[in-house]
Amino acid sequence: MPAPLEFYFDFSSPYGYLAATRVGPLARRFGREVRWHPILLGAAFKATGMAPLPLVPLKGPYSVRDMERSARFMGITLRMPQPFPIATQAPARAVCWVRRKYPEQVEALILALYRAYFVDGIDISAPEATVSCAAGLGLDAAGVRAALADLAIKDELKAEVEAAVGLGVFGSPYLVVDGEPFWGADRLEQAERWLALGGF
Amino acid sequence: MPAPLEFYFDFSSPYGYLAATRVGPLARRFGREVRWHPILLGAAFKATGMAPLPLVPLKGPYSVRDMERSARFMGITLRMPQPFPIATQAPARAVCWVRRKYPEQVEALILALYRAYFVDGIDISAPEATVSCAAGLGLDAAGVRAALADLAIKDELKAEVEAAVGLGVFGSPYLVVDGEPFWGADRLEQAERWLALGGF
Repeated sequence: MPAPLEFYFDFSSPYGYLAATRVGPLARRFGREVRWHPILLGAAFKATGMAPLPLVPLKGPYSVRDMERSARFMGITLRMPQPFPIATQAPARAVCWVRRKYPEQVEALILALYRAYFVDGIDISAPEATVSCAAGLGLDAAGVRAALADLAIKDELKAEVEAAVGLGVFGSPYLVVDGEPFWGADRLEQAERWLALGGF
Repeated sequence: MPAPLEFYFDFSSPYGYLAATRVGPLARRFGREVRWHPILLGAAFKATGMAPLPLVPLKGPYSVRDMERSARFMGITLRMPQPFPIATQAPARAVCWVRRKYPEQVEALILALYRAYFVDGIDISAPEATVSCAAGLGLDAAGVRAALADLAIKDELKAEVEAAVGLGVFGSPYLVVDGEPFWGADRLEQAERWLALGGF
C-alpha cells in the first residue's frame, strides 16, 4: 500500500481551499489516501517571521486579486469573505475530532467548512457555525460541540501544529508526497507528475 | 498594435530566469512585444518589508528545492549558483543601455546574462562578467563598460526601479498583460489564457 499524501491546510487560506477541493481526487487517481492535517497559520508565521498575506504592502492587494483569479482559472467558486482572515481553531478542532471518530467523513467535513466560508461567507470561526456545518452532513452536533471545548482535542490540535512546523510546514496548502514537499495550490501539477513518475 | 507585455525581473531571481526564457516566445505567439524592465529586488523588499527568500526560516530551504524542481518541471537547465543572491546593478545597467542603443538585442542579452549566472555559475555582479556576456553577443564591450559607470544610466535604473515599485511591483518575475499583473513564473499559464481570451 503506497504512503498517503500528507495535506496541511488552514481554514482561513483561500489557496488551501482551492487545493483541498483537488487533492482528494488527485490522490484517488493514484490509489492513494490523504491524511488531512488542519494547522493554524499564526504558529507557522511565528516560526518564519512572515506576516499574513493581506497585511503585506503591495503583495496584499495583489494576492486578493490572484486568489480570485486563480479560483476562476481552476473553475472553482470562491467569494472573498468578510471578515478575512479569521481564527480557525473551531473548524480545525472539529476536523481533529471527526478524523478520529468518523474518518470516512473527514474530507466531506473539510470541504463543507471551506465552502461555508469561501462560497457562502459564513464566519466559521464561530463554534456554532462549525457545528452547523457538521450537522449538515449528518454528524452528531452535540458531539462536535463538546469536542470544540474538549481539552484533549485542543491539545491534539496544538500538537498537530507543532509537529507540522517541526517538519518545515510554513504555509497553506502544503502537500507532502513520498517525502517531497509542495507548497501552494499552484504546485498540484508538479505533485501530480511526481505521483505519476515517482519523482522528476 | 496591441500593447506590449511589461516584464519586471531581477537578475538574481531564479524564477525571473525561468520566466524570462518563456515570456518572449509567449508574447510572439500573440503578436505582442515585451518591454523588459530590470529591477532591484532590494528596493521592492524595502517597500513590502519582505526578506530575500533564502533568509526566511523554513521557507528558504523549501524555496531552493522548489526553484530546482520547477526548472526541471519546465525543462529548463538551472544550477543554483554561489554566491546567491547577488547584487544586480551591473547586469541591470547593461540592459538599460542596450535597451536604448540596440533594442533588438535586449532579449538576447538578458537571456545570456541569466544563463551565465544560473547555468554557468558566473558571478554577473562583477562588471567585467557582465561586459564579457555582452561582448559574447557581439555588442561593443567598451560601450557597455562605460555604460556601467555612467551616471545617466545609474539614474535611469534608479527611476525604473522606483516606477516599478510605484506601480505595485513587489517581486520577480512580475508580468503585466493589458493592466493585469501576474507574479511568478508559475503564473505564465494564467497570463497565456488572459492573452488568449482577453481576460477570464
